[in-house]
Amino acid sequence: MSPDLARIIAMDTFDVRFPTSRELDGSDAMNPDPDYSAAYLVLRTDSPDELAGHGFTFTIGRGNDVQVAAIEALRSHVVGRSVDELCADPGLVSRSLVGDSQLRWLGPEKGVMHMAIGAVVNAVWDLAAKRQRKPLWKLLADADPEWLVSQVDFRYLTDALTPAEALDLLRRGKEGREEREDALLRKGYPAYTTSPGWLGYSDEKLARLAREAVAAGFAQIKLKVGADLDDDIRRCRVARSVVGPHVRMAIDANQRWNVDDAVAWVGALAEFDPYWIEEPTSPDDILGHAAIRDAVAPVKVATGEHVQNRIVFKQLLQAGAIDVLQLDAARVGGVNENLGILLLAAKFGVPVCPHAGGVGLCELVQHLSMFDYVALSRTTQDRVIEYVDHLHEHFTAPVVIRDGHYVAPTVPGFSADMERASLTAYTYPDGAFWVADRAAVPGPSAAEGSDDTPRDSLGVRA
Amino acid sequence: MSPDLARIIAMDTFDVRFPTSRELDGSDAMNPDPDYSAAYLVLRTDSPDELAGHGFTFTIGRGNDVQVAAIEALRSHVVGRSVDELCADPGLVSRSLVGDSQLRWLGPEKGVMHMAIGAVVNAVWDLAAKRQRKPLWKLLADADPEWLVSQVDFRYLTDALTPAEALDLLRRGKEGREEREDALLRKGYPAYTTSPGWLGYSDEKLARLAREAVAAGFAQIKLKVGADLDDDIRRCRVARSVVGPHVRMAIDANQRWNVDDAVAWVGALAEFDPYWIEEPTSPDDILGHAAIRDAVAPVKVATGEHVQNRIVFKQLLQAGAIDVLQLDAARVGGVNENLGILLLAAKFGVPVCPHAGGVGLCELVQHLSMFDYVALSRTTQDRVIEYVDHLHEHFTAPVVIRDGHYVAPTVPGFSADMERASLTAYTYPDGAFWVADRAAVPGPSAAEGSDDTPRDSLGVRA
Repeated sequence: MSPDLARIIAMDTFDVRFPTSRELDGSDAMNPDPDYSAAYLVLRTDSPDELAGHGFTFTIGRGNDVQVAAIEALRSHVVGRSVDELCADPGLVSRSLVGDSQLRWLGPEKGVMHMAIGAVVNAVWDLAAKRQRKPLWKLLADADPEWLVSQVDFRYLTDALTPAEALDLLRRGKEGREEREDALLRKGYPAYTTSPGWLGYSDEKLARLAREAVAAGFAQIKLKVGADLDDDIRRCRVARSVVGPHVRMAIDANQRWNVDDAVAWVGALAEFDPYWIEEPTSPDDILGHAAIRDAVAPVKVATGEHVQNRIVFKQLLQAGAIDVLQLDAARVGGVNENLGILLLAAKFGVPVCPHAGGVGLCELVQHLSMFDYVALSRTTQDRVIEYVDHLHEHFTAPVVIRDGHYVAPTVPGFSADMERASLTAYTYPDGAFWVADRAAVPGPSAAEGSDDTPRDSLGVRA
Repeated sequence: MSPDLARIIAMDTFDVRFPTSRELDGSDAMNPDPDYSAAYLVLRTDSPDELAGHGFTFTIGRGNDVQVAAIEALRSHVVGRSVDELCADPGLVSRSLVGDSQLRWLGPEKGVMHMAIGAVVNAVWDLAAKRQRKPLWKLLADADPEWLVSQVDFRYLTDALTPAEALDLLRRGKEGREEREDALLRKGYPAYTTSPGWLGYSDEKLARLAREAVAAGFAQIKLKVGADLDDDIRRCRVARSVVGPHVRMAIDANQRWNVDDAVAWVGALAEFDPYWIEEPTSPDDILGHAAIRDAVAPVKVATGEHVQNRIVFKQLLQAGAIDVLQLDAARVGGVNENLGILLLAAKFGVPVCPHAGGVGLCELVQHLSMFDYVALSRTTQDRVIEYVDHLHEHFTAPVVIRDGHYVAPTVPGFSADMERASLTAYTYPDGAFWVADRAAVPGPSAAEGSDDTPRDSLGVRA
């Protein structure tokens, strides 16, 4: 078959869950026991090149099956379509999915259905980048500004950003592009780490991990706060004393507070010089963030990992509600919507410091920040990508961190491919890990039990 | 078994779909071909009274299966629980569902998962009202203010509404309660009708239905707009000429516009004296609604049917973005969240004119407005409930409209019970209607075909 006749012939889905709650990795004030999970999909084609597009939504356990069902509801929009056509214009898929009038009712453009759209759209971009034999960041950085603008949905954006303004920003982004690409390949992109700061860790573990983070070259760490003020004061004191005055220390409340609580709590932690307060309140509360920002300055306000779409980001910027925009690669409608969000941030001059962690979020989002640096914002000043050292071993091209920086990926695609053995072992409830787990741990829900049985590299018990 | 030991023993779910797209009932600028559907659930108990709690999410077709999957993901939160305990405090269920930290990741408090929570919470309220042998509006109107305040989740609200303020509003709502309840039972609650104004209708059908609406006692009608300006001008002229200058004529763009489009389009229709412009832009765009409202006054701005939760309503009120708050009984997290929204509207003095139509939304939402009148806002001035004459025959206690008013229901419960025969016939894809449909209409999707075959009262072909 000639490649130009190739079609998407199947969308395979997987409900993949990892038992992270047992170690309190990822524990914070709102999410005490996450089981990091992925509603994962593979777009298969009948092209002789045998390339496939991979994408996923990150969840934290229960409900991952609902997310898989939502992805499956989108199957008819992609299966049967021309691979060449989709890869030449991923916006086709994005528009088709966002524009499905019946499915739109279930959002619109938010929650389970919108994240499902993002997973499918990202899988198309992964396939497109693999076919161009480029990592996604380079595909985007090499693209014509006109084509990039055509990939953005400007509906509900034009009062803040017009297509003409977007085009200007992208044209300006071409100036000095080669130098920045060289610098990126040489030095990587700055990272910060959340690994020391999970709420479930002891002070000793916090101190040890914070010390290790600084030694490893990170210039910023992050602590979870918001469950208990006395604990937070003690933990911030421990961390600040370990990292010294010059390492930035962000704090993250994971939406725990009302507006007044946020102002008071951040005030009580001010003596430890927090760099930003992340998710002080509901991600939906634009005006609340603006009020908090007014009150807690010079502590910066950051949010984004739960911001549902470009329309809310637009307003956070219009209202002067945030100092730091934390886009997430798998929360909104995929690369197309994230291009719009990066353009909004560039227009308003607000730095983008993406949310990552979870399963595979570091792998995805590095591409967006690297494109932003090379071809849009033209700087890494005050910009860092979150890094958490979880679950990277399950990916075929995991992120590489060196001297506190993400090393620019060179493998073609969006770095979304999970190892086939991991997909198989951790598929819930019938993968080998979960079958073995139920056999070993009695009770209604294995995930609730504690478990010290040795495991092999896939986590399957020996 | 003694009633106080009764438990919820099962949650049955149904994917119910009606083929409304064939008649263009419900067609608007964003939803050209809805198949009105319900993701429906029944909570069964082992109580000797054999009462069951019914609830549902309204959708418009594709994706109703995803919505059912989301409802099923909540099963473990209700099945096995004490009926007495839940009915004495439905907030228990609401808090348990909204607070599930793993499921929360899929929103938070928005989209598919939040609507599923609303369906389950509403089913508990239905059961509670049936057990008290009261229609829900009366259960709420009779309740102690302190208890009602305990049913509201004030998280993310206190910068606009505190529990103490809510208590004051509800206590004030008790003054003159008996007189208003008498008036409600005598006269009903004012309605307006959208039936004439669907985009898919001819001018002749529009004129005929508008004339009939006025003759039937409605003091307000609504027209869908936003697909084509020339068509809208013509249709508004037809409607205004038929209803005369004194009947209020609302227009509804169903989110079709960007901010600038909305201002220009409403300006072009101003000569027909529209009463409100509904959903001029994205329901997420608080600041956009505020800008539109500034520009189109004295035309009022209304929104709410797609507003995801109390936090967005709070901001719409804080920003002065709306003149009319259109709550929906089945979009947010159920009665508990709608109590919070009614209290916010009362605090800000903005009239609530609920969204209805669809499947069963009229049946549900009348209870909330009637409670609002009797025990909170104390007035029906400038307040109307939407009415559409669709699909009421499928409910065991359908709404009754008399002289342009909703007659106050007296049947115990939340009026959510669908006829068992309808549930069975329209369950997708294996109910009798859909099986017969596939047998009669060749092609990939029966719902896309036209169909003039006579049907019996359930819509099953003769």
